[in-house]
Amino acid sequence: MDPSEVDVPPLKDLTIDNITDNVKLINSKCANPRLKYIVERIVQHLHDFARETRLSHDEWMTGLLFLTSVGQICTDVRQEFILLSDILGLSLLVDSIDHPKPPHSTEGTVLGPFHSHEAQSEPNGAVISHDPDGEPCLVLCDIKDTNGAPVEGVKIDIWETDSKGFYDVQYPGREGPDQRAVMHSDGEGVFWFKAIVPVPYPIPHDGPVGKLLVQLKRHCYRPSHMHFMFEKGGFDHLITALYLRGDPYETSDAVFGVKESLLIDLGTVSSEQAQKYGVKEGSKMIGYNFVLVSETESKELREKNAMEAMKAQGRTMKLWNGLPVPDMD
Amino acid sequence: MDPSEVDVPPLKDLTIDNITDNVKLINSKCANPRLKYIVERIVQHLHDFARETRLSHDEWMTGLLFLTSVGQICTDVRQEFILLSDILGLSLLVDSIDHPKPPHSTEGTVLGPFHSHEAQSEPNGAVISHDPDGEPCLVLCDIKDTNGAPVEGVKIDIWETDSKGFYDVQYPGREGPDQRAVMHSDGEGVFWFKAIVPVPYPIPHDGPVGKLLVQLKRHCYRPSHMHFMFEKGGFDHLITALYLRGDPYETSDAVFGVKESLLIDLGTVSSEQAQKYGVKEGSKMIGYNFVLVSETESKELREKNAMEAMKAQGRTMKLWNGLPVPDMD
Repeated sequence: MDPSEVDVPPLKDLTIDNITDNVKLINSKCANPRLKYIVERIVQHLHDFARETRLSHDEWMTGLLFLTSVGQICTDVRQEFILLSDILGLSLLVDSIDHPKPPHSTEGTVLGPFHSHEAQSEPNGAVISHDPDGEPCLVLCDIKDTNGAPVEGVKIDIWETDSKGFYDVQYPGREGPDQRAVMHSDGEGVFWFKAIVPVPYPIPHDGPVGKLLVQLKRHCYRPSHMHFMFEKGGFDHLITALYLRGDPYETSDAVFGVKESLLIDLGTVSSEQAQKYGVKEGSKMIGYNFVLVSETESKELREKNAMEAMKAQGRTMKLWNGLPVPDMD
Repeated sequence: MDPSEVDVPPLKDLTIDNITDNVKLINSKCANPRLKYIVERIVQHLHDFARETRLSHDEWMTGLLFLTSVGQICTDVRQEFILLSDILGLSLLVDSIDHPKPPHSTEGTVLGPFHSHEAQSEPNGAVISHDPDGEPCLVLCDIKDTNGAPVEGVKIDIWETDSKGFYDVQYPGREGPDQRAVMHSDGEGVFWFKAIVPVPYPIPHDGPVGKLLVQLKRHCYRPSHMHFMFEKGGFDHLITALYLRGDPYETSDAVFGVKESLLIDLGTVSSEQAQKYGVKEGSKMIGYNFVLVSETESKELREKNAMEAMKAQGRTMKLWNGLPVPDMD
């Protein structure tokens, strides 16, 4: 920005007590009301954090170098900042805020850092895992709307680890995607595929986030689960996962993703199913009925919840592109 | 961490309202009381921030990618997270908390991202800037303690930009350090050297922090200044800078560093000084009397301020390695 174009209030001699208001003031020329509000809240919390901890220069530097290392370990296939957000509970919180669910709809959960855009489009019945050591698992699901009508043509992104607990992208020498697919629901809202039984696995713990978990005496395991992401025009984007009930990490997921409504019991393929779906009788299966919320319903609920929360916090706000900003009028 | 060694409270079905307490609970096994307190505060502020803004998934992702880019632009000679901390006022705030100054001692200010460990040790009288376009400037300073006694043998790190407003480390092809030196005060507490008149300059603005400043309609300029860092056993580490009074950015420093007590007027070398210091009569000069605080005095003041602040915040705390932690006794 050319300084001559900038209208900055005079600032000098800033102290522990007056710096926050002054930094807010210098940022207050921001033309985007939402960014302005977000930055105003960041400055307040960052400064309050320093004042409440009496943060030392050494701790400040340790923190900045920690964040630097989190950024530097990120690659096209590893997102350590998502992982950091996950283990601090921020990811789940943001999903809960942004994708509120009316009763009887499918709850969301953490995206995690391993979704990729490499998945192949597959037809119903496809084998999406080629790990010979994985235990075969038939996955048989359908999708309805909140009125109980089947939803056709939903794009479903599915991803899980191999039998060793690693996603394809964690293998440097991999040849292509595996244990992931993009599918579409049929006229009855059905989609089904052949995968493997999910296993528990550690989140990547060789980086700064793993080191932090050790410091906090937390383990880095996630319970067995399979990720699903649903997209269709007119419906709220749903990021969720199904978790195996009884997993040793069911109540201690390193990233706080488990919800009762997303727990499933592993079933067993009947002889009729074996014939119908071309799998072995007695092999494992997962079934689930997903319920998508319409975009309108989700938007209304999100905005209603937002305004109620703002009121409860004593803030006078209005909605701007569906998100709260201070109401200056 | 081996999960069997970890004692984690059962967590499931976390919501907007209960997630914060539960994340704190899972982190509460941390053995280091200071880290535990710091992380507890981070979780509270991070979650409150999301609840107060009703942070959307897109905004969350934008933020994480922003932090990733801040980390990824960092190199051995560029620290973008320090820059981010600087423009948000956190750096100055932390310096004020960690290095409290009794009256009449020299105030501290931001370190900035351009201190390096490459500076050569130089004797009094050294030429520390070799930029032929710089305006020569004699710098003549002394160091006293708070009782007015000269302090000998202080290690002084000095750094400034060249006449174009760039630090040596910003030139990829540079041959070695310039516009920086490490010196030591003599028996009278004096140190002096030949430098150039500081110029205003933009902080690096080709990265994510520069882009943020544009969004906030802030300029990226720092007023003309010269950095100083003082170290001697028994004295509190002092990071400071001298600013030229009347600089166009005197009251709008992009990183909030200017303090009235650190403003200086450029002087003119007298004929006597010209002869004594081997510089041209009428050339520019900077003089300053630095006053260092003893480590004991600084520690006492820091701890007293910390405990008073904690009390004012309604927190029952005790000191642990000189820093506050919750007092559970």
